[in-house]
Amino acid sequence: MFDFKAPQDDILFSLVHVADAARIDSWDSDMATDIIGHFSNLAEGVIAPLNASGDAQGARLEQGRVRMPDGFKNAYLQLADDGWQGLTAPESFGGMGVSPAIAAGVSEIFSGANHALQMVCNLVPGAITTLRRFGTPSQQQDWIPRLASGEALSTMCLSEPSAGSDLSTIRCRARTTETGWQIDGEKIFISGGDQDMSDTILHLVLARTGTDEDGIRGLSLFLCGAQPAISVTRIEDKMGLHASPTCQLRFDAAAAELVGQEGEGLKAMFTLMNHARIDVALQGVAHASRAAQIARLYTAERRQGRTQKGETAMLADHADVQRMLDEQAILAIGARAMCHIALVELELGTRPALAEFLTPLCKVFGSQAGIRSADLGIQLLGGYGYLREYAVEQHWRDARIAAIYEGANGIHEKTLVTRGLRQGGGADEFAALIGELADDATAIEPVFTEWQSLRTKLSRDQDPLPAAHDFAALSAKLYLQACWQRIGHMAHHHPEPQYLSHLANKTAA
Amino acid sequence: MFDFKAPQDDILFSLVHVADAARIDSWDSDMATDIIGHFSNLAEGVIAPLNASGDAQGARLEQGRVRMPDGFKNAYLQLADDGWQGLTAPESFGGMGVSPAIAAGVSEIFSGANHALQMVCNLVPGAITTLRRFGTPSQQQDWIPRLASGEALSTMCLSEPSAGSDLSTIRCRARTTETGWQIDGEKIFISGGDQDMSDTILHLVLARTGTDEDGIRGLSLFLCGAQPAISVTRIEDKMGLHASPTCQLRFDAAAAELVGQEGEGLKAMFTLMNHARIDVALQGVAHASRAAQIARLYTAERRQGRTQKGETAMLADHADVQRMLDEQAILAIGARAMCHIALVELELGTRPALAEFLTPLCKVFGSQAGIRSADLGIQLLGGYGYLREYAVEQHWRDARIAAIYEGANGIHEKTLVTRGLRQGGGADEFAALIGELADDATAIEPVFTEWQSLRTKLSRDQDPLPAAHDFAALSAKLYLQACWQRIGHMAHHHPEPQYLSHLANKTAA
Repeated sequence: MFDFKAPQDDILFSLVHVADAARIDSWDSDMATDIIGHFSNLAEGVIAPLNASGDAQGARLEQGRVRMPDGFKNAYLQLADDGWQGLTAPESFGGMGVSPAIAAGVSEIFSGANHALQMVCNLVPGAITTLRRFGTPSQQQDWIPRLASGEALSTMCLSEPSAGSDLSTIRCRARTTETGWQIDGEKIFISGGDQDMSDTILHLVLARTGTDEDGIRGLSLFLCGAQPAISVTRIEDKMGLHASPTCQLRFDAAAAELVGQEGEGLKAMFTLMNHARIDVALQGVAHASRAAQIARLYTAERRQGRTQKGETAMLADHADVQRMLDEQAILAIGARAMCHIALVELELGTRPALAEFLTPLCKVFGSQAGIRSADLGIQLLGGYGYLREYAVEQHWRDARIAAIYEGANGIHEKTLVTRGLRQGGGADEFAALIGELADDATAIEPVFTEWQSLRTKLSRDQDPLPAAHDFAALSAKLYLQACWQRIGHMAHHHPEPQYLSHLANKTAA
Repeated sequence: MFDFKAPQDDILFSLVHVADAARIDSWDSDMATDIIGHFSNLAEGVIAPLNASGDAQGARLEQGRVRMPDGFKNAYLQLADDGWQGLTAPESFGGMGVSPAIAAGVSEIFSGANHALQMVCNLVPGAITTLRRFGTPSQQQDWIPRLASGEALSTMCLSEPSAGSDLSTIRCRARTTETGWQIDGEKIFISGGDQDMSDTILHLVLARTGTDEDGIRGLSLFLCGAQPAISVTRIEDKMGLHASPTCQLRFDAAAAELVGQEGEGLKAMFTLMNHARIDVALQGVAHASRAAQIARLYTAERRQGRTQKGETAMLADHADVQRMLDEQAILAIGARAMCHIALVELELGTRPALAEFLTPLCKVFGSQAGIRSADLGIQLLGGYGYLREYAVEQHWRDARIAAIYEGANGIHEKTLVTRGLRQGGGADEFAALIGELADDATAIEPVFTEWQSLRTKLSRDQDPLPAAHDFAALSAKLYLQACWQRIGHMAHHHPEPQYLSHLANKTAA
């Protein structure tokens, strides 16, 4: 087992030099270095050491309450005491008011150290944003300070047994009573649906206020505090993320407050979801980066065979091993750049259609990058990759969910090929971004030309859906290549300039 | 959970019509149908029901002995009583003398039903072959009847803590004493190193008889019966295959017999390994096929959204879902054809270099097909794919080892681009095989041309190793395409001719 080392340099290089985060008003480079440094210490010393033990022990349901694995509550209390839960919350609500771009660096480190704990904690920033946009002043006063201080954690209650990717069939019902709204029904796949770390929980719940026939237009968003009328009926037995309790929740006339307008639940929920999507992409980046780190350390110290000169060779000296290590690094550093550039666009807000185009692209590619890099890590470690010992297999199991939750990747690919290709849907601005990123147009030209022609063809197609996957894959390939052009150009700002230039050349080929 | 259904029709179609197994002397089509039918009953009724429970419980080390999960011993005894362990053993040794091509069908079904149990049982045919080729008459008389009856199971003891893919550094030492050979040392990653199903165990052990400097030329093959001098020091904690005990074994002056000539251990071991490689490829096929079966059943009955006509849709009605289902089927049926054709070449023995070329190709592609199809299965089932409930995640975890053991895939890719491309190395015969398989040369021409030019380039290259992965991937793509040409041409012999024609068309594109 190699101790987790937060990729601080890589993250700061990416934010500052690749994504040029200084364009955001709230950005402060010194503060970024400071905050990311502080969080790295916490992640390396407190959070990462619980990752393997948390996976082995798992979260359990005991007498109706969820118990987190040993050590998680203490780690959480330290996290909350240090103010990390309020990192991006406004100072007026007790938060630190830090730029979301800095928070993205923190969040990636958190996921790399312990995806399961990050998941339970990191729905909070989205919940705060949702309350700020759609909540009443009293709801904001009631909940944001408690979320920022860590007194409360939050959930996002969407899925039901027969409503997953398709929310139009949601049956959870909200009705008005003399004392206010009440919710009845069942929700599944609720991350952190219960836990024993925070004093209370804020559930954000999508429920039906209209008729079944209203489909998604009959849905409204509610908030519910933890209460006996909300019970955990089971924890799912999953392939990975064992320390993240995925709950089935039962609502029996649970007291609720409407958030935003009746019938506009999905609109409010999307605020929560857009934040979550970039976060999921960064979870993928975190796994890609950590798996690359483990494999690089392992292959550098494991002897195997001889070099062509007849000297004792290390695993890393073999061409095929180098190929896999390079691919891991290209994925980790490249996907991170893709996410950071998207995030800066989101924050700048000057090209909203571009941000809408990049978000699903990052979600799909970032999640795949994490899975692929972890898979390469397993292969690179050989038999030891298949054992729990080096935990690279845990990274694969934990990373795998990222392609499924927050909208299965196929759904995002569908969005890209439909909404993304409409007039003003972001594809033009995406093409412009590619040009801005790539200094050397000839290096990306073959893929760019292929993309342009596929895009033109599909925008005229009666039914572009069968090509959704290919279009998303080609768009991601182009975006990755362009990002690597930019990374190569900025490599002299990185501690390993030659390695980055080498990778940039590989990617251009 | 969908009950395991053995893919009898697919296997018989592939053996009879795609691989034309009737060319082998020992082949008998009626017997094949019979035997595969009988084994399917056992697999569906007895073996498959233990797959998920065995994964959950796992094999354990208790007071120095390995205990298999509940039910495994009974299943094994039934398997042995019915004579399945002696399926390919000669009748003179108490076996059934069945063609290896029929046994391949049985073995695939076994792996699809329960890879872990198959692993522990299925080293036996290779051990019998090794004893028949290299053992003394007394060794054969001593062990083959016991292996065929199921009284003994066998192991293959190669890896050591510092000798995995590179066997030249093996340190386990054999020395002659007054009472015969004795072995001292440690072996790791020994599948079925101990279990509580068979009365005894035959260990085939690679140990050093020469000096360390002799490298692989100082290695000899030995057999050891189970004895107190061989002890299990631990069971590995793995990502998957929990019911297959992967043991660390300690040899303390263990009594041993030399098998074959001193210093020719690797040659003898390769007999064992070539058999095992095709078997591993078929393990991949088994997972590919089972994951496709689960996903096809799930997506056919799970509602989601609406069709373009506005009717309630099933998951399988969505274009992107269909794309993934098609890919699973292309991989499963295609990889099976690749393996069966290779196996028939091995049995015919008329083009040995071709068989040597196809074996690593099948090992690499078959293992990848299993992993990829299981991964698609997880994605197709969405959140439910990430749960243990439908067990498709177990198929991924179990399949994943196939790309690592029996020589990591990178090693086989290296073999292809070095030995395979030498004069007489099989590449010419491979090209000829492609021509034989593909009726319509134009459909495969682009890939064939690309392959020919890469092959020519690499055979002149000073160092082709950096391109090993690409060459293997391109060779596999070409072989897959050619196999699908053949499958398409024979589709009318299959119960779903239109589906197969559809897939053949997809593959040609």
